Amino acid sequence: MKKEVLVFIFDGYADWESAYVCAELNDPETEYIVKTLSLDKQEKISMAGFKVLPDYSVEDFPKEFSLLLLTGGYAWMQQVNDAVLPVVEYAVEKNIPVAAICNAANFMAQQGYLDQIAHSGNTVSFMQQQAPRYKGADRFLERQAVSDKNIITANGSATLEFARDILFLLKAKPEAEILKWYKMHKNGYYPV
Amino acid sequence: MKKEVLVFIFDGYADWESAYVCAELNDPETEYIVKTLSLDKQEKISMAGFKVLPDYSVEDFPKEFSLLLLTGGYAWMQQVNDAVLPVVEYAVEKNIPVAAICNAANFMAQQGYLDQIAHSGNTVSFMQQQAPRYKGADRFLERQAVSDKNIITANGSATLEFARDILFLLKAKPEAEILKWYKMHKNGYYPV
Repeated sequence: MKKEVLVFIFDGYADWESAYVCAELNDPETEYIVKTLSLDKQEKISMAGFKVLPDYSVEDFPKEFSLLLLTGGYAWMQQVNDAVLPVVEYAVEKNIPVAAICNAANFMAQQGYLDQIAHSGNTVSFMQQQAPRYKGADRFLERQAVSDKNIITANGSATLEFARDILFLLKAKPEAEILKWYKMHKNGYYPV
Repeated sequence: MKKEVLVFIFDGYADWESAYVCAELNDPETEYIVKTLSLDKQEKISMAGFKVLPDYSVEDFPKEFSLLLLTGGYAWMQQVNDAVLPVVEYAVEKNIPVAAICNAANFMAQQGYLDQIAHSGNTVSFMQQQAPRYKGADRFLERQAVSDKNIITANGSATLEFARDILFLLKAKPEAEILKWYKMHKNGYYPV
C-alpha cells in the first residue's frame, strides 16, 4: 500500500512548482503515490492551461497521508484558497509535513505557521505585504528553500531545491541518488 | 482570438518538461493559448500522477495552430505514441514549428526530421540507440536546446532553455522579458 502525498491544486496553480518533485515522488520505485486535492472535485485549469481532475476535495481528504504540498499561484493573493486551511491544520496537528512554495508560503505566514521556524519564500518584504499577521520576518532566510520542523518553504524559482528538500525529508530515494538527480537538473546535461 | 499551441500528452508524460513554457505561453498577456492533445480524449495520468483531460485527440486536432510541443516520457520508447505522427507531418508540411524534448526528440529522429538540421536531445548515442533510422548524428549539438528551421529539440534537463527558445521563436513576449524570466529561473532568486 503506497503512502499518499497530497498536492493542493486550484485554477491557475503554477505547474512548474510541483512538477519535478511529484514526478520523483510518484516514481514506482518509491513508497509514495501522488494525489491531487482541491477545494472541490471540479476540473481545475493550471496556469499552463492543463485541465486537471482532482483526486480529493477538502471535504473527503484521507486521514493518513505523508505530506501536504501547497503549490503557488496568484489565487492565494485573492484569499480564494483559504478553505484549504482545515487540511493544513490537520496536517500540522498530526505532525505531517507541509511544503509550501511561492505564494503558498505567504499563506502559511499569514496563518502563523512561519513565526517560530526558519523559513523562506519569495522575499521577506513581499511576505510581509501579503501576510499582515506574519511575525516571523527575523526567521526569514534568503535561501532557495528552507526545511525546519516539518515545514518546507521555497520561492517560485526554487522548484529543484524545493523538490530536493521534500525528497530528503520523506527519504523517498537514497540521498546520493537525490543529490545526483538535483545536480543533473540544476546544472543541465550540457553547460550553458 | 488566441492562437493555439498544442501540447501532446499521454500516460506518463514528464510534467516538468512542458510546465515552464506552457505557463508562460498561456499567460493572458500573450497572443497564445495552450491546448492539450492526446491519442484519444480519455483522461491521461502524468508521470507526477496528475489526471489531465485532453482538449483534443489526434482525430480532431485544429487545422490552425502555432506550435506542436511533444513532451518527453518513457512511452516514446515503447512506440505507443507513434499515432501522433500525422499531426507532426501536418505541422511540418504547413511550416508550423514543432518542439520536441527528451524522448520525443528521439521520435523526431526516428521519423527522419532531424537528419538535415542542427538539433539536440539527451545524448547522440542514446538517440542512435532509440532511433535506428536516424542519420543526423553529425548534426547533433551538445547543447541544452537547439532551434533550427522551425524545429526545437532539447534534453530532459533543459526545460528552461527549451522554454526560452520556444518563447523566442513564437515572439510570445519581448526578448528582454524572456531573457529576464529565463535567468531568474535558471539562477534562482537566491544563490545556492
